[in-house]
Amino acid sequence: MFITIEGPEGSGKTTATNKVIEELTKLGYDVIRTREPGGTPISEQIRNVILDKSNTAMDPRTEALLYAAARRQHLVEKVWPLTKEGKIVVCDRYIDSSLAYQGGARGLGIQNIIDINMFATENTWPDLTLLFDIEPELGLSRIAANANREVNRLDLEKLDFHKKVRETFLELAKTQPNRFVVIDASKSQEEVASAALKAILARICK
Amino acid sequence: MFITIEGPEGSGKTTATNKVIEELTKLGYDVIRTREPGGTPISEQIRNVILDKSNTAMDPRTEALLYAAARRQHLVEKVWPLTKEGKIVVCDRYIDSSLAYQGGARGLGIQNIIDINMFATENTWPDLTLLFDIEPELGLSRIAANANREVNRLDLEKLDFHKKVRETFLELAKTQPNRFVVIDASKSQEEVASAALKAILARICK
Repeated sequence: MFITIEGPEGSGKTTATNKVIEELTKLGYDVIRTREPGGTPISEQIRNVILDKSNTAMDPRTEALLYAAARRQHLVEKVWPLTKEGKIVVCDRYIDSSLAYQGGARGLGIQNIIDINMFATENTWPDLTLLFDIEPELGLSRIAANANREVNRLDLEKLDFHKKVRETFLELAKTQPNRFVVIDASKSQEEVASAALKAILARICK
Repeated sequence: MFITIEGPEGSGKTTATNKVIEELTKLGYDVIRTREPGGTPISEQIRNVILDKSNTAMDPRTEALLYAAARRQHLVEKVWPLTKEGKIVVCDRYIDSSLAYQGGARGLGIQNIIDINMFATENTWPDLTLLFDIEPELGLSRIAANANREVNRLDLEKLDFHKKVRETFLELAKTQPNRFVVIDASKSQEEVASAALKAILARICK
């Protein structure tokens, strides 16, 4: 089973996922956690190119193609072999992040990003996607609180971008309701983790 | 004007291109030579990932996406700005190499590779493509002669691959006759360079 975790920074998805994997492991499930971009040596090399802070000249389409390349390699070397062995693979970010960030917020178009990702993944969609949904203002304020600093000018300038990301995530969830479970990430850590665990168990037992 | 140089290793395209650029420069044309993958810092980083000999696990689709990513960045940062300035950009390998090697010989499908490259290039086809065509056996024997060694088992095993590459290149030339000029690369260096120069001048003066 292939489960993906989506949502913006500050949505608490990492904390909730840690908790959920702990609980699933206690219940006897064989759960592997992984992340995108990365997860294999080649994908990590691609990740380094994407995240290299000196690469300010990177074009959004270059970025989208690099994410798709890293995704492909991660599927081939890690996700597919593990799911074939019957393991539950929980992956932090997948195709929906590309759709929300590159397709929606950067304006490259949802269908364009779906197309290159269908080539990359040979039409591999997750069995379940948890969307940690939160108002961008609240998410950003949490990041700021974590870093012990005020929300700065840059965060504020990017608010419109984050709003488009959220809007696209929610649209995707609406059009693919069988795959998505939307989790209200404005609630307490316990409530969020509990909702996530419930959604995964419901899918496993289906 | 955007001119691309295609053909297998051993076709003598590098030698011929050197000669042609020398002649064009003498004639007063402003010619810039570049290559794929590479040509910009980000594209060179991507090139390093593609060509890293330790990356034996690289999947063909990952490779195709990385070539498209490097191509995009090279267009944005180098080819488009230079052609806009009125320069003649001569690029060693472009989309047709992806079509011949990944689409044809590796069996990923021509249309699939066209699709991801149309996303990458926003439908940028070269104004002129010189295809240095040669029988794979002759091309491989030239490489072997250059390296002062016999054609080895690996070269022979790959003959079928090289045949598919050639076949795809020739098919592309047939379907896009206005863009392609096929050069018989089995001839002497002088004849090959002369044919290449003639084709470029014909396109410039059109």
